[in-house]
Amino acid sequence: MTAGCEDGGMPADDRPARLGRPRAQPDTASGLSPRDQILDAAAALFVENGFSATSTRAIAERVGIRQASLYYHFAGKDDLLVELLTTSVRPSLDVVRGLVDRVPGSVSAAGALAALVLIDVDTLARTPHNIGTLYMLPEVQGDRYDGFRADRQELQDTYGRLGTLAATADIRATVTPERLGGILIQLAETVIQLRRDREVDDQDREAITGTCLRACGLTPDAVATARRDATALLTAASV
Amino acid sequence: MTAGCEDGGMPADDRPARLGRPRAQPDTASGLSPRDQILDAAAALFVENGFSATSTRAIAERVGIRQASLYYHFAGKDDLLVELLTTSVRPSLDVVRGLVDRVPGSVSAAGALAALVLIDVDTLARTPHNIGTLYMLPEVQGDRYDGFRADRQELQDTYGRLGTLAATADIRATVTPERLGGILIQLAETVIQLRRDREVDDQDREAITGTCLRACGLTPDAVATARRDATALLTAASV
Repeated sequence: MTAGCEDGGMPADDRPARLGRPRAQPDTASGLSPRDQILDAAAALFVENGFSATSTRAIAERVGIRQASLYYHFAGKDDLLVELLTTSVRPSLDVVRGLVDRVPGSVSAAGALAALVLIDVDTLARTPHNIGTLYMLPEVQGDRYDGFRADRQELQDTYGRLGTLAATADIRATVTPERLGGILIQLAETVIQLRRDREVDDQDREAITGTCLRACGLTPDAVATARRDATALLTAASV
Repeated sequence: MTAGCEDGGMPADDRPARLGRPRAQPDTASGLSPRDQILDAAAALFVENGFSATSTRAIAERVGIRQASLYYHFAGKDDLLVELLTTSVRPSLDVVRGLVDRVPGSVSAAGALAALVLIDVDTLARTPHNIGTLYMLPEVQGDRYDGFRADRQELQDTYGRLGTLAATADIRATVTPERLGGILIQLAETVIQLRRDREVDDQDREAITGTCLRACGLTPDAVATARRDATALLTAASV
């Protein structure tokens, strides 16, 4: 499994290309499982070279395994992309599903919205190789991606629902939940654009969260309260 | 030039595939110039099938011309994509360049920002086959697309500049012009997401413009004033 990997866990991208016979399993020096090494290599190649220009052979080569070993873990390229895209929405959905049912009872809608934005920004800031850049691929419109598209739609609907609950009367009167959801998820996805140039930082988080709350018509005081509520919610959720 | 085109100007997409020898020039029944017919066919194929999966031969076939005739107008696929992407930013830039120098003298910053958003939303609503879905392609990071990327950056910088001039003191103190520009152009590009499902309508225009103004901290009254200013500006500009 770890044949020829005495290089002390350098990140996979910095390691020199290895010569010799491909292994049946990727090495484990990176700390990633074989499955995750394949996903990471696929993400890198899809984003750098394009999805249709990337072969499973190229992915296997980048990991340093045989193509057959890749097929042991994944049925093919679409399977890889579905799983990668899912990592860009599922973690946010998992947290927010537990939150939404408590709104507006024990949790303020604006606080829950701010928490959702913060979680979603972090999820998008962590996707392998900024895989969100591939949302617009024609392939992602196909049947095989129904599950991913349903997840992203659920996330967008949650934005619309929380945003509408948090919104002032004039926003609720003029912007439908569907439109507000589309605008708020778009704002969170500013992260995808930012990551093409640089890392996302705390000021980005603050600016994006603040913009989402202001988009719902919240005053500066209400924005500040929602931020405090969100911090409390996320601290409680992580305990 | 118009051989075999007695079909009364049906849109190119609705016309049945034509058999027989490809023409040297596309037919003119669509009302589009040969050059624009090639651009339209390229946009359709790039968006439907992907950029790297589309050949110049397939584009020529769709128009019903010989591949050599395509090369008379365009050097290749990148040349086509550069021109298509440019149509998604240049019209907005052309209008706004004349506006920016008059801010904040004879034109209010918030009014100019609202006008920019309205123009940009319309530009993006009109791009052939929603070509903005291709912004994230890896190819578009290459040297050949420097001109397009510079145009889009200028548009983003203009959003940042107008947004910062229009913003309330608390927004100016916490959100840099660079961040605000990134957020505002992202909001305008909600149009690209919307168009994947449906046409953009007046309520979308109003929601996106309103969100951009609220993102700058504007109160409901200030938003209403900015909208009126923008309408006046755009009416004057179109005379």
